[in-house]
Amino acid sequence: MNKSIGFLGPKGTFSHEAVEGYRSGQNKAYELKEYHSIKDVLCALKDGEVDEAIVPIENSLEGAVNVTLDVLAKEEDMFIVDEFIIPVNLNLVAKQGTKAEDIKVLMSHPQPLGQCRNYLNTNFPGVVQLEENSTSKAAQKVVDGDGTCAAITSKIAAKIYGLEVLETNIQDNENNHTRFVIIARSLKAKTGADKTSIVFSTDNKPGSLYRVLDIFSLWDINMTRIESRPSKSALGQYIFFVDIDGHIEDPDVHDALTMVKRKTSFYKFLGSYPAFAGKI
Amino acid sequence: MNKSIGFLGPKGTFSHEAVEGYRSGQNKAYELKEYHSIKDVLCALKDGEVDEAIVPIENSLEGAVNVTLDVLAKEEDMFIVDEFIIPVNLNLVAKQGTKAEDIKVLMSHPQPLGQCRNYLNTNFPGVVQLEENSTSKAAQKVVDGDGTCAAITSKIAAKIYGLEVLETNIQDNENNHTRFVIIARSLKAKTGADKTSIVFSTDNKPGSLYRVLDIFSLWDINMTRIESRPSKSALGQYIFFVDIDGHIEDPDVHDALTMVKRKTSFYKFLGSYPAFAGKI
Repeated sequence: MNKSIGFLGPKGTFSHEAVEGYRSGQNKAYELKEYHSIKDVLCALKDGEVDEAIVPIENSLEGAVNVTLDVLAKEEDMFIVDEFIIPVNLNLVAKQGTKAEDIKVLMSHPQPLGQCRNYLNTNFPGVVQLEENSTSKAAQKVVDGDGTCAAITSKIAAKIYGLEVLETNIQDNENNHTRFVIIARSLKAKTGADKTSIVFSTDNKPGSLYRVLDIFSLWDINMTRIESRPSKSALGQYIFFVDIDGHIEDPDVHDALTMVKRKTSFYKFLGSYPAFAGKI
Repeated sequence: MNKSIGFLGPKGTFSHEAVEGYRSGQNKAYELKEYHSIKDVLCALKDGEVDEAIVPIENSLEGAVNVTLDVLAKEEDMFIVDEFIIPVNLNLVAKQGTKAEDIKVLMSHPQPLGQCRNYLNTNFPGVVQLEENSTSKAAQKVVDGDGTCAAITSKIAAKIYGLEVLETNIQDNENNHTRFVIIARSLKAKTGADKTSIVFSTDNKPGSLYRVLDIFSLWDINMTRIESRPSKSALGQYIFFVDIDGHIEDPDVHDALTMVKRKTSFYKFLGSYPAFAGKI
Protein backbone atom coordinates (compact mmCIF):
# COMPACT_ATOMS: atom_id res chain seq x y z
CA MET A 1 0.00 0.00 0.00
CA ASN A 2 1.25 3.49 -0.79
CA LYS A 3 2.21 5.85 1.97
CA SER A 4 -0.17 8.72 2.58
CA ILE A 5 0.83 12.33 3.26
CA GLY A 6 -1.38 15.13 4.56
CA PHE A 7 -1.11 18.73 3.36
CA LEU A 8 -2.96 22.05 3.67
CA GLY A 9 -5.52 22.03 0.87
CA PRO A 10 -7.49 22.59 -1.18
CA LYS A 11 -5.62 21.94 -4.42
CA GLY A 12 -3.60 24.92 -5.65
CA THR A 13 -2.12 26.00 -2.30
CA PHE A 14 1.62 26.43 -1.95
CA SER A 15 1.48 23.37 0.31
CA HIS A 16 0.04 21.50 -2.69
CA GLU A 17 2.91 22.78 -4.85
CA ALA A 18 5.36 21.68 -2.13
CA VAL A 19 3.90 18.19 -1.69
CA GLU A 20 3.92 17.61 -5.47
CA GLY A 21 7.53 18.76 -5.64
CA TYR A 22 8.52 16.63 -2.67
CA ARG A 23 6.70 13.56 -3.97
CA SER A 24 8.35 13.78 -7.39
CA GLY A 25 11.80 13.73 -5.74
CA GLN A 26 11.12 10.60 -3.67
CA ASN A 27 11.48 7.08 -4.97
CA LYS A 28 8.19 5.99 -3.51
CA ALA A 29 4.55 6.60 -4.34
CA TYR A 30 2.48 8.84 -2.06
CA GLU A 31 -1.23 9.21 -1.74
CA LEU A 32 -2.09 12.91 -1.07
CA LYS A 33 -4.73 13.83 1.49
CA GLU A 34 -5.82 17.45 1.87
CA TYR A 35 -6.88 19.14 5.11
CA HIS A 36 -8.52 22.43 6.05
CA SER A 37 -5.82 23.88 8.34
CA ILE A 38 -2.21 23.25 9.36
CA LYS A 39 -3.47 22.08 12.73
CA ASP A 40 -5.80 19.56 11.05
CA VAL A 41 -2.90 18.20 8.98
CA LEU A 42 -0.89 17.57 12.16
CA CYS A 43 -3.90 16.13 14.02
CA ALA A 44 -4.44 13.69 11.13
CA LEU A 45 -0.84 12.53 11.55
CA LYS A 46 -1.27 12.16 15.29
CA ASP A 47 -4.49 10.17 14.84
CA GLY A 48 -2.89 7.84 12.28
CA GLU A 49 -5.06 9.00 9.37
CA VAL A 50 -1.92 9.70 7.36
CA ASP A 51 1.63 8.30 7.49
CA GLU A 52 3.32 11.68 7.06
CA ALA A 53 2.45 15.37 7.06
CA ILE A 54 4.02 18.23 5.14
CA VAL A 55 3.63 21.67 6.75
CA PRO A 56 5.27 25.09 6.27
CA ILE A 57 7.62 26.07 9.10
CA GLU A 58 9.40 29.21 7.89
CA ASN A 59 9.20 31.83 5.17
CA SER A 60 12.12 34.03 4.16
CA LEU A 61 10.05 37.23 4.44
CA GLU A 62 7.39 36.57 7.08
CA GLY A 63 9.41 34.38 9.40
CA ALA A 64 8.20 31.44 11.44
CA VAL A 65 4.84 29.74 10.94
CA ASN A 66 3.69 29.96 14.54
CA VAL A 67 1.05 27.23 14.51
CA THR A 68 3.56 24.66 13.21
CA LEU A 69 6.10 25.55 15.92
CA ASP A 70 3.49 25.54 18.66
CA VAL A 71 2.18 22.08 17.72
CA LEU A 72 5.71 20.63 17.36
CA ALA A 73 6.66 21.95 20.82
CA LYS A 74 3.58 20.38 22.41
CA GLU A 75 2.87 17.04 20.74
CA GLU A 76 4.75 13.87 21.59
CA ASP A 77 5.82 11.27 19.02
CA MET A 78 6.07 13.61 16.08
CA PHE A 79 9.42 13.93 14.37
CA ILE A 80 10.74 16.01 11.52
CA VAL A 81 11.99 13.47 8.98
CA ASP A 82 12.77 15.72 6.01
CA GLU A 83 12.61 19.29 4.72
CA PHE A 84 11.70 20.81 1.36
CA ILE A 85 12.07 24.41 0.16
CA ILE A 86 10.07 26.06 -2.64
CA PRO A 87 10.14 29.58 -4.13
CA VAL A 88 6.91 31.48 -3.55
CA ASN A 89 5.72 33.62 -6.43
CA LEU A 90 2.54 35.52 -5.63
CA ASN A 91 0.03 36.72 -8.18
CA LEU A 92 -3.00 39.00 -8.13
CA VAL A 93 -5.86 36.97 -9.61
CA ALA A 94 -9.52 37.78 -10.27
CA LYS A 95 -12.47 36.76 -12.43
CA GLN A 96 -11.89 37.09 -16.16
CA GLY A 97 -12.28 40.73 -17.23
CA THR A 98 -11.94 42.29 -13.74
CA LYS A 99 -10.16 45.65 -13.74
CA ALA A 100 -7.82 46.72 -10.90
CA GLU A 101 -10.03 49.76 -10.12
CA ASP A 102 -13.07 47.48 -9.53
CA ILE A 103 -11.37 45.64 -6.68
CA LYS A 104 -12.99 46.31 -3.30
CA VAL A 105 -11.87 43.21 -1.39
CA LEU A 106 -8.53 41.37 -1.38
CA MET A 107 -8.34 37.86 0.00
CA SER A 108 -5.52 35.49 0.84
CA HIS A 109 -3.83 33.56 3.61
CA PRO A 110 -2.28 35.95 6.17
CA GLN A 111 1.30 35.10 5.12
CA PRO A 112 0.88 36.10 1.43
CA LEU A 113 -0.97 39.26 2.57
CA GLY A 114 2.08 40.09 4.72
CA GLN A 115 4.47 39.27 1.90
CA CYS A 116 2.73 41.79 -0.42
CA ARG A 117 2.25 44.47 2.27
CA ASN A 118 4.07 47.25 0.37
CA TYR A 119 2.51 46.37 -2.99
CA LEU A 120 -1.01 46.33 -1.48
CA ASN A 121 -0.51 49.55 0.51
CA THR A 122 0.77 51.30 -2.63
CA ASN A 123 -1.68 49.93 -5.19
CA PHE A 124 -4.76 49.18 -3.08
CA PRO A 125 -4.71 51.63 -0.15
CA GLY A 126 -7.77 51.26 2.04
CA VAL A 127 -9.06 48.16 0.20
CA VAL A 128 -10.38 45.60 2.73
CA GLN A 129 -8.10 42.61 3.25
CA LEU A 130 -9.75 39.35 4.30
CA GLU A 131 -7.83 36.45 5.83
CA GLU A 132 -8.68 33.01 4.49
CA ASN A 133 -7.41 29.61 5.61
CA SER A 134 -5.50 29.11 2.37
CA THR A 135 -4.70 30.84 -0.92
CA SER A 136 -6.92 28.31 -2.71
CA LYS A 137 -9.85 29.08 -0.43
CA ALA A 138 -9.38 32.74 -1.38
CA ALA A 139 -9.41 31.75 -5.08
CA GLN A 140 -12.65 29.77 -4.54
CA LYS A 141 -14.23 32.81 -2.88
CA VAL A 142 -13.28 35.00 -5.84
CA VAL A 143 -15.02 32.48 -8.14
CA ASP A 144 -18.16 32.72 -5.96
CA GLY A 145 -17.85 36.52 -5.62
CA ASP A 146 -19.43 39.40 -7.53
CA GLY A 147 -16.42 40.55 -9.57
CA THR A 148 -15.14 43.09 -7.02
CA CYS A 149 -12.88 40.57 -5.26
CA ALA A 150 -9.33 39.57 -6.00
CA ALA A 151 -7.07 36.97 -4.42
CA ILE A 152 -3.33 36.52 -3.99
CA THR A 153 -2.46 32.98 -5.04
CA SER A 154 -0.06 30.71 -6.87
CA LYS A 155 -0.33 30.53 -10.67
CA ILE A 156 -1.49 26.92 -10.39
CA ALA A 157 -4.47 28.06 -8.28
CA ALA A 158 -5.46 30.63 -10.94
CA LYS A 159 -5.40 27.83 -13.52
CA ILE A 160 -7.34 25.36 -11.36
CA TYR A 161 -10.08 27.91 -10.56
CA GLY A 162 -10.22 29.50 -14.04
CA LEU A 163 -9.18 32.97 -12.86
CA GLU A 164 -7.26 35.66 -14.71
CA VAL A 165 -3.78 36.65 -13.52
CA LEU A 166 -3.93 40.48 -13.31
CA GLU A 167 -0.33 40.85 -12.14
CA THR A 168 2.50 38.39 -11.50
CA ASN A 169 5.20 38.35 -8.79
CA ILE A 170 3.64 41.04 -6.60
CA GLN A 171 5.60 40.03 -3.48
CA ASP A 172 7.62 42.87 -1.90
CA ASN A 173 10.88 40.97 -2.14
CA GLU A 174 12.16 38.68 -4.88
CA ASN A 175 13.69 36.43 -2.24
CA ASN A 176 10.53 34.66 -1.18
CA HIS A 177 11.00 31.03 -0.20
CA THR A 178 9.07 28.79 2.14
CA ARG A 179 10.65 25.92 4.02
CA PHE A 180 8.37 22.94 4.62
CA VAL A 181 9.05 20.08 7.00
CA ILE A 182 7.85 16.53 6.57
CA ILE A 183 6.67 15.06 9.86
CA ALA A 184 6.18 11.41 10.78
CA ARG A 185 5.59 9.32 13.90
CA SER A 186 9.05 7.72 13.87
CA LEU A 187 12.57 8.79 12.94
CA LYS A 188 14.48 8.12 9.72
CA ALA A 189 18.01 6.78 9.40
CA LYS A 190 21.10 8.98 9.19
CA THR A 191 22.19 10.08 5.69
CA GLY A 192 25.50 11.83 6.45
CA ALA A 193 24.27 15.31 5.48
CA ASP A 194 21.76 15.88 8.24
CA LYS A 195 20.49 18.58 10.53
CA THR A 196 18.79 18.31 13.89
CA SER A 197 15.99 20.39 15.41
CA ILE A 198 15.28 20.78 19.10
CA VAL A 199 13.10 23.00 21.30
CA PHE A 200 13.87 24.00 24.87
CA SER A 201 13.26 26.57 27.54
CA THR A 202 15.66 27.80 30.15
CA ASP A 203 15.23 28.97 33.71
CA ASN A 204 14.30 32.63 33.73
CA LYS A 205 17.74 33.60 35.07
CA PRO A 206 20.37 35.97 33.63
CA GLY A 207 22.60 34.29 31.07
CA SER A 208 20.68 31.01 30.90
CA LEU A 209 20.23 31.06 27.10
CA TYR A 210 23.88 31.97 26.71
CA ARG A 211 24.88 28.93 28.76
CA VAL A 212 22.96 26.63 26.41
CA LEU A 213 24.54 28.14 23.31
CA ASP A 214 27.87 27.76 25.08
CA ILE A 215 27.33 24.00 24.89
CA PHE A 216 27.11 24.08 21.09
CA SER A 217 30.23 26.21 21.00
CA LEU A 218 32.07 23.77 23.26
CA TRP A 219 31.29 20.84 20.94
CA ASP A 220 31.95 22.92 17.79
CA ILE A 221 28.38 22.43 16.63
CA ASN A 222 27.06 24.93 14.11
CA MET A 223 23.67 26.44 15.02
CA THR A 224 21.87 27.41 11.80
CA ARG A 225 18.72 28.88 13.30
CA ILE A 226 17.26 30.10 16.57
CA GLU A 227 13.62 31.12 16.88
CA SER A 228 11.92 32.22 20.08
CA ARG A 229 8.25 31.72 20.85
CA PRO A 230 6.39 32.74 23.98
CA SER A 231 6.24 29.99 26.61
CA LYS A 232 2.59 31.02 27.15
CA SER A 233 3.08 30.84 30.89
CA ALA A 234 4.06 34.50 31.37
CA LEU A 235 5.07 37.52 29.32
CA GLY A 236 8.86 37.57 28.99
CA GLN A 237 9.30 33.79 29.15
CA TYR A 238 10.23 32.00 25.95
CA ILE A 239 10.88 28.64 24.38
CA PHE A 240 13.65 28.41 21.78
CA PHE A 241 13.63 26.40 18.56
CA VAL A 242 17.16 25.63 17.47
CA ASP A 243 18.48 23.91 14.32
CA ILE A 244 22.01 22.55 14.32
CA ASP A 245 24.16 20.73 11.76
CA GLY A 246 24.55 16.98 12.31
CA HIS A 247 22.50 13.90 13.29
CA ILE A 248 21.50 12.77 16.77
CA GLU A 249 23.54 9.58 16.12
CA ASP A 250 26.74 11.63 15.67
CA PRO A 251 28.63 11.25 18.97
CA ASP A 252 29.25 15.00 19.38
CA VAL A 253 25.65 15.94 18.63
CA HIS A 254 24.44 13.21 20.95
CA ASP A 255 26.70 14.37 23.80
CA ALA A 256 25.97 18.06 23.32
CA LEU A 257 22.22 17.46 23.31
CA THR A 258 22.49 15.29 26.41
CA MET A 259 24.09 18.30 28.09
CA VAL A 260 21.49 20.71 26.67
CA LYS A 261 18.76 18.49 28.11
CA ARG A 262 20.50 18.58 31.50
CA LYS A 263 20.83 22.38 31.51
CA THR A 264 17.29 23.28 30.41
CA SER A 265 13.96 23.28 32.22
CA PHE A 266 12.11 21.92 29.16
CA TYR A 267 13.69 20.00 26.28
CA LYS A 268 12.29 18.17 23.28
CA PHE A 269 14.11 16.52 20.41
CA LEU A 270 12.23 17.31 17.19
CA GLY A 271 14.16 15.15 14.75
CA SER A 272 17.29 14.58 12.67
CA TYR A 273 16.79 14.68 8.92
CA PRO A 274 18.63 15.26 5.64
CA ALA A 275 19.32 18.95 4.95
CA PHE A 276 17.61 20.20 1.78
CA ALA A 277 19.97 19.60 -1.12
CA GLY A 278 17.91 21.21 -3.89
CA LYS A 279 18.44 24.61 -5.49
CA ILE A 280 17.12 27.66 -3.59
CA MET B 1 0.29 72.76 23.22
CA ASN B 2 -0.40 69.18 24.30
CA LYS B 3 1.70 66.34 22.96
CA SER B 4 -0.01 64.09 20.42
CA ILE B 5 0.23 60.29 20.32
CA GLY B 6 -0.83 58.01 17.47
CA PHE B 7 -2.46 54.60 18.04
CA LEU B 8 -4.16 51.82 16.06
CA GLY B 9 -7.82 52.82 15.91
CA PRO B 10 -10.70 52.99 15.69
CA LYS B 11 -11.86 53.51 19.29
CA GLY B 12 -12.29 50.28 21.26
CA THR B 13 -9.12 48.49 20.09
CA PHE B 14 -6.67 47.11 22.64
CA SER B 15 -4.31 49.85 21.42
CA HIS B 16 -6.99 52.33 22.49
CA GLU B 17 -7.18 50.64 25.90
CA ALA B 18 -3.37 50.79 26.14
CA VAL B 19 -3.08 54.44 25.14
CA GLU B 20 -5.77 55.43 27.67
CA GLY B 21 -3.99 53.48 30.38
CA TYR B 22 -0.61 54.92 29.45
CA ARG B 23 -1.96 58.48 29.27
CA SER B 24 -3.57 58.27 32.71
CA GLY B 25 -0.23 57.26 34.24
CA GLN B 26 1.70 60.20 32.76
CA ASN B 27 1.81 63.63 34.28
CA LYS B 28 1.20 65.36 30.99
CA ALA B 29 -1.80 65.77 28.70
CA TYR B 30 -1.91 63.86 25.42
CA GLU B 31 -4.02 64.36 22.34
CA LEU B 32 -4.96 60.95 20.85
CA LYS B 33 -4.86 60.42 17.08
CA GLU B 34 -6.13 57.17 15.59
CA TYR B 35 -4.74 55.44 12.48
CA HIS B 36 -5.84 52.57 10.25
CA SER B 37 -2.81 50.25 10.66
CA ILE B 38 0.30 49.85 12.79
CA LYS B 39 2.35 50.90 9.78
CA ASP B 40 0.27 54.09 9.43
CA VAL B 41 0.82 54.92 13.12
CA LEU B 42 4.59 54.67 12.64
CA CYS B 43 4.52 56.59 9.34
CA ALA B 44 2.61 59.40 11.09
CA LEU B 45 5.40 59.58 13.67
CA LYS B 46 8.06 59.62 10.96
CA ASP B 47 6.24 62.39 9.07
CA GLY B 48 5.87 64.54 12.19
CA GLU B 49 2.06 64.26 12.31
CA VAL B 50 2.29 63.04 15.92
CA ASP B 51 4.90 63.49 18.66
CA GLU B 52 4.78 59.88 19.82
CA ALA B 53 3.33 56.54 18.72
CA ILE B 54 2.13 53.60 20.82
CA VAL B 55 2.27 50.21 19.08
CA PRO B 56 2.06 46.57 20.23
CA ILE B 57 5.39 44.74 20.04
CA GLU B 58 4.79 41.42 21.80
CA ASN B 59 1.96 39.25 23.12
CA SER B 60 2.43 36.54 25.73
CA LEU B 61 0.58 33.94 23.59
CA GLU B 62 1.12 34.92 19.97
CA GLY B 63 4.66 36.28 20.25
CA ALA B 64 6.18 39.17 18.36
CA VAL B 65 4.17 41.68 16.35
CA ASN B 66 6.13 41.35 13.11
CA VAL B 67 5.17 44.62 11.45
CA THR B 68 6.35 46.62 14.48
CA LEU B 69 9.71 44.83 14.56
CA ASP B 70 10.19 45.16 10.80
CA VAL B 71 9.53 48.93 10.83
CA LEU B 72 11.77 49.49 13.90
CA ALA B 73 14.62 47.59 12.22
CA LYS B 74 14.34 49.67 9.05
CA GLU B 75 13.48 53.26 9.99
CA GLU B 76 16.06 55.75 11.23
CA ASP B 77 15.41 58.30 14.00
CA MET B 78 12.75 56.30 15.82
CA PHE B 79 13.45 55.37 19.41
CA ILE B 80 11.58 53.36 22.01
CA VAL B 81 11.06 55.80 24.91
CA ASP B 82 8.74 53.77 27.15
CA GLU B 83 6.79 50.52 27.44
CA PHE B 84 3.33 49.67 28.74
CA ILE B 85 1.76 46.26 29.39
CA ILE B 86 -1.98 45.47 29.49
CA PRO B 87 -3.94 42.25 30.11
CA VAL B 88 -5.92 41.14 27.05
CA ASN B 89 -9.35 39.70 27.75
CA LEU B 90 -11.12 38.56 24.61
CA ASN B 91 -14.88 38.29 24.21
CA LEU B 92 -17.21 36.84 21.60
CA VAL B 93 -19.58 39.65 20.62
CA ALA B 94 -22.48 39.83 18.18
CA LYS B 95 -25.65 41.79 17.44
CA GLN B 96 -28.21 41.76 20.26
CA GLY B 97 -30.14 38.46 20.21
CA THR B 98 -27.67 36.49 18.05
CA LYS B 99 -27.39 32.80 19.00
CA ALA B 100 -24.10 30.89 18.81
CA GLU B 101 -25.59 28.44 16.28
CA ASP B 102 -26.42 31.29 13.87
CA ILE B 103 -22.79 32.35 13.54
CA LYS B 104 -21.36 31.70 10.07
CA VAL B 105 -18.49 34.21 10.05
CA LEU B 106 -16.02 35.16 12.79
CA MET B 107 -14.02 38.36 12.47
CA SER B 108 -11.10 39.87 14.35
CA HIS B 109 -7.51 41.01 14.07
CA PRO B 110 -5.21 38.03 13.31
CA GLN B 111 -3.64 38.08 16.81
CA PRO B 112 -6.93 37.63 18.74
CA LEU B 113 -7.94 34.91 16.23
CA GLY B 114 -4.66 33.12 17.06
CA GLN B 115 -5.17 33.64 20.79
CA CYS B 116 -8.58 31.90 20.66
CA ARG B 117 -7.49 29.14 18.25
CA ASN B 118 -8.49 26.22 20.52
CA TYR B 119 -11.76 27.82 21.60
CA LEU B 120 -12.75 28.55 17.99
CA ASN B 121 -11.71 25.12 16.69
CA THR B 122 -13.75 23.45 19.46
CA ASN B 123 -16.84 25.65 19.41
CA PHE B 124 -16.92 26.89 15.82
CA PRO B 125 -15.24 24.22 13.67
CA GLY B 126 -15.35 25.08 9.99
CA VAL B 127 -16.77 28.58 10.57
CA VAL B 128 -15.06 31.07 8.26
CA GLN B 129 -12.54 33.35 10.00
CA LEU B 130 -11.96 36.78 8.46
CA GLU B 131 -8.95 38.93 9.26
CA GLU B 132 -9.65 42.60 9.90
CA ASN B 133 -7.23 45.46 10.53
CA SER B 134 -8.38 45.81 14.14
CA THR B 135 -10.80 44.31 16.66
CA SER B 136 -12.90 47.49 16.43
CA LYS B 137 -13.12 47.22 12.65
CA ALA B 138 -14.45 43.68 13.18
CA ALA B 139 -17.03 45.04 15.66
CA GLN B 140 -18.12 47.67 13.11
CA LYS B 141 -18.54 44.96 10.47
CA VAL B 142 -20.73 42.94 12.83
CA VAL B 143 -22.93 46.03 13.27
CA ASP B 144 -23.22 46.34 9.47
CA GLY B 145 -23.69 42.57 9.04
CA ASP B 146 -26.80 40.39 8.72
CA GLY B 147 -26.79 38.78 12.17
CA THR B 148 -24.71 35.72 11.21
CA CYS B 149 -21.41 37.42 12.09
CA ALA B 150 -19.57 37.60 15.38
CA ALA B 151 -16.38 39.37 16.38
CA ILE B 152 -13.67 38.86 18.98
CA THR B 153 -13.09 42.16 20.74
CA SER B 154 -12.48 43.98 24.00
CA LYS B 155 -15.47 44.62 26.26
CA ILE B 156 -15.09 48.35 25.63
CA ALA B 157 -15.57 47.75 21.89
CA ALA B 158 -18.80 45.80 22.55
CA LYS B 159 -20.05 48.78 24.57
CA ILE B 160 -18.99 51.40 21.99
CA TYR B 161 -20.65 49.51 19.11
CA GLY B 162 -23.76 48.41 21.05
CA LEU B 163 -23.07 44.68 20.67
CA GLU B 164 -23.97 41.83 23.00
CA VAL B 165 -21.19 39.89 24.75
CA LEU B 166 -22.05 36.21 24.05
CA GLU B 167 -19.08 34.85 25.98
CA THR B 168 -16.29 36.46 28.01
CA ASN B 169 -12.59 35.55 28.32
CA ILE B 170 -12.53 33.09 25.41
CA GLN B 171 -8.73 33.23 25.01
CA ASP B 172 -6.99 29.83 25.19
CA ASN B 173 -4.76 30.88 28.06
CA GLU B 174 -5.51 33.08 31.05
CA ASN B 175 -2.03 34.57 30.77
CA ASN B 176 -2.72 36.94 27.90
CA HIS B 177 -0.79 40.19 28.04
CA THR B 178 0.35 42.56 25.35
CA ARG B 179 3.44 44.71 25.65
CA PHE B 180 3.23 48.08 23.88
CA VAL B 181 6.14 50.37 23.17
CA ILE B 182 5.96 54.14 22.98
CA ILE B 183 8.08 55.47 20.14
CA ALA B 184 9.38 59.01 19.60
CA ARG B 185 11.88 60.81 17.38
CA SER B 186 14.36 61.50 20.19
CA LEU B 187 15.57 59.70 23.32
CA LYS B 188 14.45 60.26 26.90
CA ALA B 189 16.71 60.70 29.94
CA LYS B 190 17.89 57.84 32.15
CA THR B 191 15.66 56.92 35.10
CA GLY B 192 17.83 54.33 36.90
CA ALA B 193 15.47 51.39 36.20
CA ASP B 194 15.87 51.14 32.45
CA LYS B 195 16.15 48.60 29.70
CA THR B 196 17.72 48.89 26.28
CA SER B 197 16.64 47.42 22.94
CA ILE B 198 18.90 46.79 19.95
CA VAL B 199 18.65 44.94 16.64
CA PHE B 200 21.59 43.38 14.80
CA SER B 201 22.58 40.76 12.30
CA THR B 202 25.72 38.68 12.28
CA ASP B 203 27.84 37.25 9.51
CA ASN B 204 26.40 33.96 8.35
CA LYS B 205 29.23 32.02 9.98
CA PRO B 206 29.16 29.27 12.63
CA GLY B 207 29.00 30.62 16.16
CA SER B 208 28.51 34.27 15.20
CA LEU B 209 25.37 34.77 17.32
CA TYR B 210 27.08 33.03 20.22
CA ARG B 211 30.00 35.47 19.98
CA VAL B 212 27.64 38.43 20.34
CA LEU B 213 25.87 36.95 23.37
CA ASP B 214 29.34 36.28 24.77
CA ILE B 215 29.80 40.07 24.92
CA PHE B 216 26.78 40.48 27.21
CA SER B 217 28.09 37.66 29.39
CA LEU B 218 31.54 39.30 29.59
CA TRP B 219 30.04 42.58 30.84
CA ASP B 220 27.54 40.79 33.13
CA ILE B 221 24.61 42.26 31.25
CA ASN B 222 21.28 40.47 31.58
CA MET B 223 19.53 39.73 28.27
CA THR B 224 15.79 39.62 28.89
CA ARG B 225 14.62 38.81 25.36
CA ILE B 226 15.88 37.63 22.00
CA GLU B 227 13.67 37.51 18.95
CA SER B 228 14.76 36.50 15.47
CA ARG B 229 13.21 37.80 12.27
CA PRO B 230 14.17 36.91 8.71
CA SER B 231 16.74 39.30 7.23
CA LYS B 232 14.66 39.14 4.00
CA SER B 233 17.83 38.76 1.97
CA ALA B 234 17.88 34.95 1.98
CA LEU B 235 16.22 32.02 3.70
CA GLY B 236 18.25 31.08 6.78
CA GLN B 237 19.58 34.60 7.44
CA TYR B 238 18.18 36.46 10.42
CA ILE B 239 18.24 39.70 12.32
CA PHE B 240 18.03 39.54 16.11
CA PHE B 241 16.09 41.86 18.42
CA VAL B 242 17.61 41.85 21.88
CA ASP B 243 16.46 43.55 25.11
CA ILE B 244 18.96 43.99 27.93
CA ASP B 245 18.78 45.50 31.42
CA GLY B 246 20.36 48.95 31.78
CA HIS B 247 20.62 52.29 29.97
CA ILE B 248 22.91 53.24 27.08
CA GLU B 249 24.44 55.88 29.39
CA ASP B 250 25.54 53.17 31.88
CA PRO B 251 29.27 52.70 31.21
CA ASP B 252 29.05 48.88 30.97
CA VAL B 253 26.04 48.96 28.63
CA HIS B 254 27.74 51.61 26.53
CA ASP B 255 30.98 49.61 26.27
CA ALA B 256 29.26 46.29 25.60
CA LEU B 257 27.10 47.80 22.85
CA THR B 258 30.16 49.46 21.30
CA MET B 259 31.65 45.98 21.07
CA VAL B 260 28.39 44.46 19.75
CA LYS B 261 28.36 47.11 17.01
CA ARG B 262 31.95 46.22 16.11
CA LYS B 263 31.22 42.47 15.91
CA THR B 264 28.01 42.59 13.87
CA SER B 265 27.35 43.20 10.18
CA PHE B 266 24.25 45.31 10.94
CA TYR B 267 23.52 47.10 14.20
CA LYS B 268 20.86 49.56 15.31
CA PHE B 269 20.21 51.04 18.73
CA LEU B 270 16.44 51.11 19.32
CA GLY B 271 16.31 52.99 22.60
CA SER B 272 16.81 53.00 26.38
CA TYR B 273 13.65 53.45 28.41
CA PRO B 274 12.14 52.81 31.86
CA ALA B 275 11.16 49.17 32.40
CA PHE B 276 7.42 48.75 33.00
CA ALA B 277 6.82 49.09 36.74
CA GLY B 278 3.08 48.35 36.78
CA LYS B 279 1.38 45.13 37.83
CA ILE B 280 1.22 42.32 35.26
